[in-house]
Amino acid sequence: MLNQRLKLLLQTVRRLIRREAKGNLRNMLRKLHPADIAHLIKYLNLKESKWTFDLIEDSEMAATVLSELEPEIISVLLEDLDNVKISQILQEMPADDAAEMVSDMPEEKAENILRLMQHKESKEVEDLLSYPEDTAGRIMTPHFFALFEDTTAEEAIKKLRDAVDAEMVFYIYVIDRRHHLVGIVSLRKLIITSTGSPIKNIMTTDVISVQTHTDQEEVAMMVAKYNLLAIPVVDEQNKMMGIITVDDVIDIIREEATEDIYKMAGTSEEELLEKSTWKITSIRTPWLFFSLIGEGLSSVILRYYNNTLQGVISIVFFIPLVMALGGNVGNQSQTIVVRGLATGRIEQLDIWNILFRQSKVGLLMGFLAGIIAGLCVTLFYKHPALGLVVGISVFISVNISAIVGTITPFLFNKMHVDPAVAAGPFITNFNDVVGISIYLGIATAMMKYLV
Amino acid sequence: MLNQRLKLLLQTVRRLIRREAKGNLRNMLRKLHPADIAHLIKYLNLKESKWTFDLIEDSEMAATVLSELEPEIISVLLEDLDNVKISQILQEMPADDAAEMVSDMPEEKAENILRLMQHKESKEVEDLLSYPEDTAGRIMTPHFFALFEDTTAEEAIKKLRDAVDAEMVFYIYVIDRRHHLVGIVSLRKLIITSTGSPIKNIMTTDVISVQTHTDQEEVAMMVAKYNLLAIPVVDEQNKMMGIITVDDVIDIIREEATEDIYKMAGTSEEELLEKSTWKITSIRTPWLFFSLIGEGLSSVILRYYNNTLQGVISIVFFIPLVMALGGNVGNQSQTIVVRGLATGRIEQLDIWNILFRQSKVGLLMGFLAGIIAGLCVTLFYKHPALGLVVGISVFISVNISAIVGTITPFLFNKMHVDPAVAAGPFITNFNDVVGISIYLGIATAMMKYLV
Repeated sequence: MLNQRLKLLLQTVRRLIRREAKGNLRNMLRKLHPADIAHLIKYLNLKESKWTFDLIEDSEMAATVLSELEPEIISVLLEDLDNVKISQILQEMPADDAAEMVSDMPEEKAENILRLMQHKESKEVEDLLSYPEDTAGRIMTPHFFALFEDTTAEEAIKKLRDAVDAEMVFYIYVIDRRHHLVGIVSLRKLIITSTGSPIKNIMTTDVISVQTHTDQEEVAMMVAKYNLLAIPVVDEQNKMMGIITVDDVIDIIREEATEDIYKMAGTSEEELLEKSTWKITSIRTPWLFFSLIGEGLSSVILRYYNNTLQGVISIVFFIPLVMALGGNVGNQSQTIVVRGLATGRIEQLDIWNILFRQSKVGLLMGFLAGIIAGLCVTLFYKHPALGLVVGISVFISVNISAIVGTITPFLFNKMHVDPAVAAGPFITNFNDVVGISIYLGIATAMMKYLV
Repeated sequence: MLNQRLKLLLQTVRRLIRREAKGNLRNMLRKLHPADIAHLIKYLNLKESKWTFDLIEDSEMAATVLSELEPEIISVLLEDLDNVKISQILQEMPADDAAEMVSDMPEEKAENILRLMQHKESKEVEDLLSYPEDTAGRIMTPHFFALFEDTTAEEAIKKLRDAVDAEMVFYIYVIDRRHHLVGIVSLRKLIITSTGSPIKNIMTTDVISVQTHTDQEEVAMMVAKYNLLAIPVVDEQNKMMGIITVDDVIDIIREEATEDIYKMAGTSEEELLEKSTWKITSIRTPWLFFSLIGEGLSSVILRYYNNTLQGVISIVFFIPLVMALGGNVGNQSQTIVVRGLATGRIEQLDIWNILFRQSKVGLLMGFLAGIIAGLCVTLFYKHPALGLVVGISVFISVNISAIVGTITPFLFNKMHVDPAVAAGPFITNFNDVVGISIYLGIATAMMKYLV
């Protein structure tokens, strides 16, 4: 959402670009918050955004702006810059953001740029890249503020004053001589402590930490659960390697939710980053094929019941109805379980409890939908027997869909397959096949009353 | 996800409950993190969780545990407690959490409990309750650390030492004599400043704040965008009223995502809080009726094409196929737009750009799906004319679905109707009707080649 202030800013920026008033725009950019510049750049067209970005003089500012942008825009902004300039910008960036950008580049370019960066910074980035994607090691920042346990409060405050990198210090981590994480001190605690006492006397030893290989989703859950501002990342020997701050966790939580939503619809977030129609289509094809196979099966079933259909053509009229009502309820149950598992609100252990509840809901909804559908068919088509068949079919298929929609995500989860990606296409097509089979099966059985 | 440590804890707790070892369990609870107790309580059955909760001696600990739990569990835990005990617990709770709990209670009970609380605390809760739900005013905490601008750094540190409530101080807010918010100082800045200088000399005057009536979703977006730990809430005169901390923002982001996911499936998060099957069903009925009406329309269309169907019964076999392929692609486009609008990744202004991209994807997917479906029908059913009809119908309905799926959420958004809740049922049923109409229309037009 673009609020009033940003709308005005955008108009001004566009006017300055049209007038090619480089000096004025440069001055204006200098005064803006990097997050606002990033926000504005999203609204400019390709040429405008490049023109604007190139006017940001300070590499640090440019780096912060890029950190706030999506990969697809970053690649556009950087495409005309030479490697030297890019390396200067990357150098100013938090190592985790730089690592993300480097990992998106072609290998050769990435290597060139890393070579051009100063050794300290490029080493940090390479260290992060050595951890697998989506783990704590990959997204942590190696800049944290740790002190040995025998440091006094006074020394600690002095060290804090000298720490250039420490703009984001929330906690002071306490380590032993071999760099094992042993405790934590809050800034406030430090301030209110008398100067001479060593920090090990005021530290909390119950430190909540994650390991470098911990999945980023679990990291996010822990930060959320314990209401932390940052979580320390340690290796297998409990040696402190980095921290992950809450602002990164917010991004993870939002991304993971988006990912799940797209997966349930049979596509992926990559679609937004992708310009090629072919690539987007290829992301979506798995579900396309699933549909083709599933509905191919539906056509075989309908063909099998050829005689029934030809005997009473009005049976055909309600095929979409039976399909849609079952699909509807199955999708609802599936959504409840998939999202519940993702947020941790539902756990694998809850399966019987949830199944019981969803079955009850399926029962009642199937009953309501069956009665209404059956009555409508009876009244509008003056065909009570067909109304009965439709009503019963709706009732049964809604119930089956509710149960399948509930159990499938649990099963996929148990098999360590992401329920969001697997459950979506499977359940949708499965419900269609089941609905049609039940409807035509019952109609065939009751054929003598229908004709 | 229940990790190894919590699994062991859960076993121990259950064993202690079976043995009714109150003393041991009480000691154990005393040593646990409140978030862990809350997590354990989720896994215990009703009786066990009440038994455990009642063993938490300290009202403050009980309050923190409740803050981490879902409303449905809270109501169970509190139902047997008398109002005095409840008021003691609420008193220890952050005012925003207490307000949320009070607003979930029956009015009379809520009033009784507020009356039993100490005046200061109950007033805070009532103040928050005077703001509408889902606004910044409702979810802010009135406990923040603000100092007048002429306070010196030394005085500020002294004040910080005396502040009991300030466990969560991230920033020091600077106000003028009439309590207008004028600046902000980070704890670190305060520490490294020489003692005598007034804080107005070191404060940042570009303060990012929200107003009491700002929607919580916008609050969350701002905290995420500017990477804040807390955001100040001011009234219309810029007087400081409270703060919203990042841990609450994380909860909002997660909840809003969950809400959207459930809405798109035609249900609501309330379903998880609800024990009555009737209530859950009533939450879901709007979509049920939408389906009944939409698919009722489908049946009317099919009936209209009665002769076509009776003429060539194999047309029926592919009704589900045409419906499913269009629905699939329409749902994907809709999901991309609904979620994009919710996260701010897509804006109202992007409509033509997104429509162009989604249309291209629709074109290619329609082409692929149409060719494959058409070829399959031709090969397996040895009926080239029917294959052509199916192929063309799939192609057209996929294209229409992609366009409708893209435009509808933008339209609803423009009309200030939540795209997630409106687009879901509308698009699903619309696509079915369109798919069937196109398929039967084309089949009828080409009837002479089909028989």
